[in-house]
Amino acid sequence: MKIFPDCLLCMLRQVVEASRMAAEEHEVHEKIMDDSLKIISEYKKYRCSPDLCRVLHQAVKKHTGVADPYMHIKERDIKAALDLYPQLKRFLEKKGNSLYWALKTAGTGNIIDSALYNNVNMENCVKEELEREFSICDMEIFEKCLKAAKRILIIGDNAGETVFDRILAEHLQEFEIIYAVRSEPIINDVTLSDAYASGLDNCTKIVSTGCNVPGAVLEECSTEFTEIFHNADIVISKGLGNHETLSDQDRGIFFLLKAKCPVIAQKLGVALNDYVFKFNGNTAAKN
Amino acid sequence: MKIFPDCLLCMLRQVVEASRMAAEEHEVHEKIMDDSLKIISEYKKYRCSPDLCRVLHQAVKKHTGVADPYMHIKERDIKAALDLYPQLKRFLEKKGNSLYWALKTAGTGNIIDSALYNNVNMENCVKEELEREFSICDMEIFEKCLKAAKRILIIGDNAGETVFDRILAEHLQEFEIIYAVRSEPIINDVTLSDAYASGLDNCTKIVSTGCNVPGAVLEECSTEFTEIFHNADIVISKGLGNHETLSDQDRGIFFLLKAKCPVIAQKLGVALNDYVFKFNGNTAAKN
Repeated sequence: MKIFPDCLLCMLRQVVEASRMAAEEHEVHEKIMDDSLKIISEYKKYRCSPDLCRVLHQAVKKHTGVADPYMHIKERDIKAALDLYPQLKRFLEKKGNSLYWALKTAGTGNIIDSALYNNVNMENCVKEELEREFSICDMEIFEKCLKAAKRILIIGDNAGETVFDRILAEHLQEFEIIYAVRSEPIINDVTLSDAYASGLDNCTKIVSTGCNVPGAVLEECSTEFTEIFHNADIVISKGLGNHETLSDQDRGIFFLLKAKCPVIAQKLGVALNDYVFKFNGNTAAKN
Repeated sequence: MKIFPDCLLCMLRQVVEASRMAAEEHEVHEKIMDDSLKIISEYKKYRCSPDLCRVLHQAVKKHTGVADPYMHIKERDIKAALDLYPQLKRFLEKKGNSLYWALKTAGTGNIIDSALYNNVNMENCVKEELEREFSICDMEIFEKCLKAAKRILIIGDNAGETVFDRILAEHLQEFEIIYAVRSEPIINDVTLSDAYASGLDNCTKIVSTGCNVPGAVLEECSTEFTEIFHNADIVISKGLGNHETLSDQDRGIFFLLKAKCPVIAQKLGVALNDYVFKFNGNTAAKN
């Protein structure tokens, strides 16, 4: 997906945020900003925003010496989401354990994006957000796919959102569920240890995409992951970053996200902050 | 004042906003962004943020052919503020027509900064904001200065805020009040026509600073203005831009503003969004 002026702004804001998390010295912030401006002024060299985002956050890591500036934020978000887990279970029960609301719960998890909302009060927010329906929901195609499916790949997005995805994975226990994570820390995206800390090891097989971009860039993913990606009966891609890197792919993918940015909302033809479960592909099955 | 990473972010956001106001074509937005990134990556060349801001907005004007992208926003804000004028007058009466609340009314006008809050609902906001007290208020020094004063210079900031300044100017009618504006349109800053549209010609002498930076840069101001600046008995500087360009000046200046940005709030030692009426100088009189 093309990089828009809004994307550049958003990424630069994230860099300033990450710099502050990782260092206190103004001189360090300035060095990161100087590098970031150089990088970002060549934004046309990059395939997509997540690709550029990785390079920007490498500058943060380089100048601060901190490998995972969002570590505490991720721990906080996972803890907060785990505290909510019983409530999420009750919510789904109340909704008759329907597939729609299991998907919607996983979609709601996409609000936990510290990179965008760094002061989100999760508990207050979640109650209201859980009840909101999808504005696009390709449920019929999904149900059709499920009938012939054995193996489902979920490509994870943010730490904390992972606990919401667990609700969906537990709902789909009759299938083999593979949960893919980033190969190393990048913004607040889920890594192996975050997925384990979220309890996803009890209901999924956790794998790394082999790629450290905040969005799975297939050309950079491991052979193991790309094989899983191409052979899975169903692929569910979570969040904005994965949508940006995977929306032009040939195979059918279900994109499950909250349209938190105006650029993606416009691309999907929905209002800002709408929930979307959209199939992207020519056929209902993998192709 | 030094340029911080937050300032760069803020200015880039303004440029994206102004581009959208002045043009619809994505290609134009992209050209402006490309120029802006080049300009902003050399930010150390500039004295202060307002200086850099001018160059950025010249890129908007160049690529869109629109000399005043904020024209409609300024008209809207002035109209909304004029609608509030009777309410502001009543508020001051209710407060016993005190000097403190006349100053505070002018300070409150600083919320009308479309460059920062583009969806501010003025009426709802103003009631609450008017009642908030200054967190720094050098009232004693001001009252002492007033005793010996004849001529007061107010350096204006944003269009719309001008109507709130009128309340202060009307309160100080026993003095000769000069109201200074930018020499040409820059963001939503007040120009001659905006000052007239706000009714400031009835209670002040309106002059141009001769400078088109969103903040009075003395080296660039007209001889007429610099003479007024140095010879006025009291100088009141409104808003953030003027604070940035004038805070290192030798002569005593009263800075009247809302600390809307974290950088300025920290510099002034107040909380974000606090109101400030602060004297910057060694003596109570001009020096």
